[in-house]
Amino acid sequence: MTVSYTLEVANARFAGFSKLLFRWKGSIYKLLYKEFIAFSVLYATLSLTYRRLLNSDQRKMFEKVAKYCNQQSNLIPMSFVLGFYVSLVVNRWWSQYTSIPLPDQLMMVVSANVHGADEKGRILRRTLMRYANLSSVLILRSVSTRVRKRFPTMDHVVEAGFMTRDEQKKLESLYSDFNKYWMPMVWFTNLAAQARREGRVRDDVALRLLMDELNKYRAKCSMLFHYDWISIPLVYTQVVTIAVYSFFTVTLVGRQFLHPSEDSEDALDLYVPVFTLLQFFFYAGWLKKQVAEQIINPFGEDDDDFETNKLIDRNIQVSLLAVDDMYQNLPPAEKDKYWN
Amino acid sequence: MTVSYTLEVANARFAGFSKLLFRWKGSIYKLLYKEFIAFSVLYATLSLTYRRLLNSDQRKMFEKVAKYCNQQSNLIPMSFVLGFYVSLVVNRWWSQYTSIPLPDQLMMVVSANVHGADEKGRILRRTLMRYANLSSVLILRSVSTRVRKRFPTMDHVVEAGFMTRDEQKKLESLYSDFNKYWMPMVWFTNLAAQARREGRVRDDVALRLLMDELNKYRAKCSMLFHYDWISIPLVYTQVVTIAVYSFFTVTLVGRQFLHPSEDSEDALDLYVPVFTLLQFFFYAGWLKKQVAEQIINPFGEDDDDFETNKLIDRNIQVSLLAVDDMYQNLPPAEKDKYWN
Amino acid sequence: MTVSYTLEVANARFAGFSKLLFRWKGSIYKLLYKEFIAFSVLYATLSLTYRRLLNSDQRKMFEKVAKYCNQQSNLIPMSFVLGFYVSLVVNRWWSQYTSIPLPDQLMMVVSANVHGADEKGRILRRTLMRYANLSSVLILRSVSTRVRKRFPTMDHVVEAGFMTRDEQKKLESLYSDFNKYWMPMVWFTNLAAQARREGRVRDDVALRLLMDELNKYRAKCSMLFHYDWISIPLVYTQVVTIAVYSFFTVTLVGRQFLHPSEDSEDALDLYVPVFTLLQFFFYAGWLKKQVAEQIINPFGEDDDDFETNKLIDRNIQVSLLAVDDMYQNLPPAEKDKYWN
Amino acid sequence: MTVSYTLEVANARFAGFSKLLFRWKGSIYKLLYKEFIAFSVLYATLSLTYRRLLNSDQRKMFEKVAKYCNQQSNLIPMSFVLGFYVSLVVNRWWSQYTSIPLPDQLMMVVSANVHGADEKGRILRRTLMRYANLSSVLILRSVSTRVRKRFPTMDHVVEAGFMTRDEQKKLESLYSDFNKYWMPMVWFTNLAAQARREGRVRDDVALRLLMDELNKYRAKCSMLFHYDWISIPLVYTQVVTIAVYSFFTVTLVGRQFLHPSEDSEDALDLYVPVFTLLQFFFYAGWLKKQVAEQIINPFGEDDDDFETNKLIDRNIQVSLLAVDDMYQNLPPAEKDKYWN
Amino acid sequence: MTVSYTLEVANARFAGFSKLLFRWKGSIYKLLYKEFIAFSVLYATLSLTYRRLLNSDQRKMFEKVAKYCNQQSNLIPMSFVLGFYVSLVVNRWWSQYTSIPLPDQLMMVVSANVHGADEKGRILRRTLMRYANLSSVLILRSVSTRVRKRFPTMDHVVEAGFMTRDEQKKLESLYSDFNKYWMPMVWFTNLAAQARREGRVRDDVALRLLMDELNKYRAKCSMLFHYDWISIPLVYTQVVTIAVYSFFTVTLVGRQFLHPSEDSEDALDLYVPVFTLLQFFFYAGWLKKQVAEQIINPFGEDDDDFETNKLIDRNIQVSLLAVDDMYQNLPPAEKDKYWN
Repeated sequence: MTVSYTLEVANARFAGFSKLLFRWKGSIYKLLYKEFIAFSVLYATLSLTYRRLLNSDQRKMFEKVAKYCNQQSNLIPMSFVLGFYVSLVVNRWWSQYTSIPLPDQLMMVVSANVHGADEKGRILRRTLMRYANLSSVLILRSVSTRVRKRFPTMDHVVEAGFMTRDEQKKLESLYSDFNKYWMPMVWFTNLAAQARREGRVRDDVALRLLMDELNKYRAKCSMLFHYDWISIPLVYTQVVTIAVYSFFTVTLVGRQFLHPSEDSEDALDLYVPVFTLLQFFFYAGWLKKQVAEQIINPFGEDDDDFETNKLIDRNIQVSLLAVDDMYQNLPPAEKDKYWN
Repeated sequence: MTVSYTLEVANARFAGFSKLLFRWKGSIYKLLYKEFIAFSVLYATLSLTYRRLLNSDQRKMFEKVAKYCNQQSNLIPMSFVLGFYVSLVVNRWWSQYTSIPLPDQLMMVVSANVHGADEKGRILRRTLMRYANLSSVLILRSVSTRVRKRFPTMDHVVEAGFMTRDEQKKLESLYSDFNKYWMPMVWFTNLAAQARREGRVRDDVALRLLMDELNKYRAKCSMLFHYDWISIPLVYTQVVTIAVYSFFTVTLVGRQFLHPSEDSEDALDLYVPVFTLLQFFFYAGWLKKQVAEQIINPFGEDDDDFETNKLIDRNIQVSLLAVDDMYQNLPPAEKDKYWN
Repeated sequence: MTVSYTLEVANARFAGFSKLLFRWKGSIYKLLYKEFIAFSVLYATLSLTYRRLLNSDQRKMFEKVAKYCNQQSNLIPMSFVLGFYVSLVVNRWWSQYTSIPLPDQLMMVVSANVHGADEKGRILRRTLMRYANLSSVLILRSVSTRVRKRFPTMDHVVEAGFMTRDEQKKLESLYSDFNKYWMPMVWFTNLAAQARREGRVRDDVALRLLMDELNKYRAKCSMLFHYDWISIPLVYTQVVTIAVYSFFTVTLVGRQFLHPSEDSEDALDLYVPVFTLLQFFFYAGWLKKQVAEQIINPFGEDDDDFETNKLIDRNIQVSLLAVDDMYQNLPPAEKDKYWN
Repeated sequence: MTVSYTLEVANARFAGFSKLLFRWKGSIYKLLYKEFIAFSVLYATLSLTYRRLLNSDQRKMFEKVAKYCNQQSNLIPMSFVLGFYVSLVVNRWWSQYTSIPLPDQLMMVVSANVHGADEKGRILRRTLMRYANLSSVLILRSVSTRVRKRFPTMDHVVEAGFMTRDEQKKLESLYSDFNKYWMPMVWFTNLAAQARREGRVRDDVALRLLMDELNKYRAKCSMLFHYDWISIPLVYTQVVTIAVYSFFTVTLVGRQFLHPSEDSEDALDLYVPVFTLLQFFFYAGWLKKQVAEQIINPFGEDDDDFETNKLIDRNIQVSLLAVDDMYQNLPPAEKDKYWN
Repeated sequence: MTVSYTLEVANARFAGFSKLLFRWKGSIYKLLYKEFIAFSVLYATLSLTYRRLLNSDQRKMFEKVAKYCNQQSNLIPMSFVLGFYVSLVVNRWWSQYTSIPLPDQLMMVVSANVHGADEKGRILRRTLMRYANLSSVLILRSVSTRVRKRFPTMDHVVEAGFMTRDEQKKLESLYSDFNKYWMPMVWFTNLAAQARREGRVRDDVALRLLMDELNKYRAKCSMLFHYDWISIPLVYTQVVTIAVYSFFTVTLVGRQFLHPSEDSEDALDLYVPVFTLLQFFFYAGWLKKQVAEQIINPFGEDDDDFETNKLIDRNIQVSLLAVDDMYQNLPPAEKDKYWN
């Protein structure tokens, strides 16, 4: 479920956002706790080894390595690399979301321009909208793991009512190496052209309007297809991942509290490297979020992902409502309150 | 009220913007004074404890911790994290604002293309515009806490004149799990189609124009629905908030003025950590503004938020003005001043 | 006047841009010289006080404060805060400029589609264009202080020939709390619809074209209205201003040349803090430019601002030229030079 | 082949992205291993020279140079220069990708609006789509080295079925200094106009729709032509390349482990400069990716490039499918599952 | 000539981009060699003065100044200031390029919709396209110094065949203070309207299409007019230029190799300040490129600028080709290779 935290915060003023810090669902804690535990265990192991197992010479060596690591870790351009990657990924994320096709425009146009209150008219309008919804289901199946799980085969799509058996056969009889999501839209245009010939679409301008709206709808499906096909180049992802992994490997050694007595008197032995853990939160959290969001599941199964299945249900529901139940079903026009 | 400070500054040249610094309404002072007091009290308590209550050994320990904190606080990537978040949020903010639908285009088209000076014609034009305004009220209710407070129930919408009782019944008789803001727009298209059949809309091109304008209007409502549904991922907000909170927790200790005598002779004991307080202003102020603006109330109730209610009033007012009072109500065409 | 320095530089190659450095009009020197003098005087006063008036103990104290200030001034995140603000403001600036409506598209469409070489036809075309120009004047009056000064009252608009007395009366008889810039555009649509009925606009497609172009024109006016209504949140402006002010207050003390003898032998006593003055130029110059540009006068009265009045004159002039003088006034079509 | 790594990662949760690190195809290792070996060999040679061949005085000199290099290498603004270049190039990359024309919209419009199930009708529809695909092949030939290799001459285009011999002759009989990719689109418009005259396109609105869709298609071809014609200015590429090359030349010397005994006791002699190699990965990897991606082959032959040839095949295949096999070939309209 | 280096690099893999480093044309070396020599001479003069002419006391003073300069040069926010300016200018550069109007869309529409194979029809189509090309020449004359040189007066435009004498007279008889580039487009619309009346444009929809395409073309001319009229505010250019100039003035002194003996034993006397020269390359090169590109000649005469004249020739050539030679000149439609 997309995690919506708007309402929760709306009444908190002073303590402010502290509430947000203690959410579990969709939170950074849930995202990262396994990695965090692993990192802590490794750090503790190293720390114990240094304090208990090493002899004096080994400690000296360890201390040299630790100082070297700590000082050289600045050579890893973390903020540069992450900053670039983060803004790349977040922009993709929002663009992908706004590329999900919604049938709202199309259904209004169908409702107003495809006429006939008889059964054939009703079937016609419903079928047009079903084709549009079917197309989006077909493309979402290949984009979103959630939708793929809901509709593992075409039979599931038929059973869910998005397609009839006849349509399934027709679709399968046409051969293409690539995703066939565009086929129901060709049916849509052909059916609309047929409705024009039968006079159910009353004029050429109205037919054009149907075509235009369908094209906008199709353009969004097409963008999803692109985003799915062209990933962010692997090289970027590898550079970022190597940077983050090597940085934290280095800090495992470099941020150990060295034997205080051998250092200046200001040195402090805290046992727990608070600031390194904080850094881990910031950098590893963002990396994981980014890579996860982008590569595994922009339309995936995280708490925080788009609820594509819910949206699919909403779309078919409102489509049929708009073109069937609401067709020429108008409240009476009367004088409004400001009439004078 | 949206705080407009343009005019105030317009005549100040030299002293320049100092005037802006002493505004209270919508200012950073009003936004932050509670947090500022809390931070100052905590700092003072720690300072007093260190100076009065600790014995010599405890002071040494405290000083060690303070130095460690001060030096490690650079590990928190404040400007990187805030910079990213700030630009993300500000872009959303302006996009949301420009997504608020204005009826200006629609009302001009209705005024020029839906004909009839008789009562039925007037009702028709007014009803069309009322439907458009109703849609925006319905979506704004679920987006803006201000509008929600003004119209807590549908009855309030009816009483305010945006909807008749009949329309309310119709709306409630149609079932949908999701926001029904799009329904009055379906009525709009059906009513426009009916007006075309009755000849009040004189040709197909004009009907198409009505449809096109309605679709642009609807697209904006739809963007508001998206912005409401998909928040900025919680993880980003948490990372930023943790970064800011932990940074200032650390400075509480790390920026204490340590006992001067034990330090180099240059050290200064100012009691008030001026620069830390300035930093608090910059970072905490921006964070609070950002989170507040984005999550609680882009269309919320702060001094600085969109005045959605005022805009709703303006919209219905100018809508009715344009399609009714101004319908075919033209000043006489005459020769202009440059005629020669 | 918008300062155009393109031509001046076009022939300078080697010495390059040094020429640009010695411009006064619209320059950073003109913008900043008052603040620069004030800053210098304050610095000199402090310097003299330190060198002449303080006794030995006071000097020591002063030196401590100065060192502290100098070192802590890095805590003020100048480049982060300014960088964010600068890019925010510059984007707004260019968007605002491109939002100024130009009548060029509209006048071409009117010239080609509203027919009749008789006096009534001429009046019709001229009136349509006058309405469009009137709308832009009305919105620019509330956006640009320059235009406001030129047209302080509606009477001035009438006298300038943008409106007739009848139109003024009509406009004032319609009540609205908000800017009425949209009203002449409603007249435009109604007048165009009337011209269609009279056959002066020959077909529905042409009428639609007129409507479409008017809508694009109106959309730009509407963007100006938005930019005027919604300022950049005050909090951002305050944070930036406080940052810059406090930074330079701190440098007044922290960049003093301390008594050389008491320091290391490398220390230099230059009396004039060259680099601090340079920094003042960069940071204060940009801030002032930004805030000034954005808040006081994007369409204001600086040397460097949009010449809105000149643009208004150009617009009405070319509008009338295109729809009246050039109406069906074509050069003879003949074979061109490349005809074979 | 565009490297798609989405599915591979989809089931990995904890170990996370480590899988991505061990991919070879399209990876940073494949991209960079030659340069990496060269760099390592040079470093090792220098290191051996210093340790084995130099006498004591020469070592001293070498150490001086090394320290100087190490310390001055910060003067090279690597992250500034690379950051700018990277964001410039990545934006171009994605824009170029989305500029590849897809025939999907066009084919739907042709299928619905160009009528006739007879042979002549079929030829007409197929020819229209072939012209559109031919145009994109012609422009892609001059943009993508892959496509150029597949179609080295126009004869290859003919043989692949995108053009007939007659068309080839016609095309070659028309003289132009520039790419003639736009010519088949002129044929398209003329053929569509002819089809309108013959009544196969039934009304003016449908013809307009064909023109509009063709124009959108053409606009994309035109963008490809621009991107090909205007490279990123050479100066930028040179600055970035010089920066990266000089940086790594400097580190060859400056990051040598100097004779430990002559330094402080903390110094460590690791022989392998781990962190410098990491930096090499980050900076050189990104540079090479950028320059490679942008200049040699946005549509080139790397593992990670657009599969333009595959896309060309897909496009002609679905084009013919949509306008021929699917023409008026509709599944029977029946009641859907939600009918009640 | 726009420097295209794509092909050159396409076959270089390992040695990679080193080839790019040794280009002269359009390179950073050509751009900067004069400034580079000047800088080097000044540096050498100062160096010689210090080493040969100064006595011991003067040297001490010089060394103090040099150290002060070197250390304070960090106060000049080079990367912040340049980074901002660079991204501002590069975005303008690309936007300007894509604003150059191309007649491709227009010519297709004219070819398909303006009928008549007789002489009058040919003249009509050619004249329409000539008007469009004339407009772009008129606006490019005031934007590009190259085009201005080619067409210093209107007579040159006539001689080049873009305009007839009659048209020139007509154009000059109409008075306007501003650029008259829009006038031929008004002729275009009037001529198109006349062609509609004469039946050469067969329907209203086709006329509308002509108008729409002309408007898109005009919009691009209009953007060029804007970019020409509104420069980047002078203040920004001055700030950047001052920053770069003062930075390099400072380094002239601050980066001198000071008398080694008086410093620590690590100091090195290289005579040639390699890194400072590198910095000069990066910063001065970018600045000069930016300012040059933007202010003097986005459409100027550098090696690397848009070849506006070549584009003008291409445009008129393809325009006439498309509307005259290719008018209804279709290859025979036949069965394609995939027909089965």
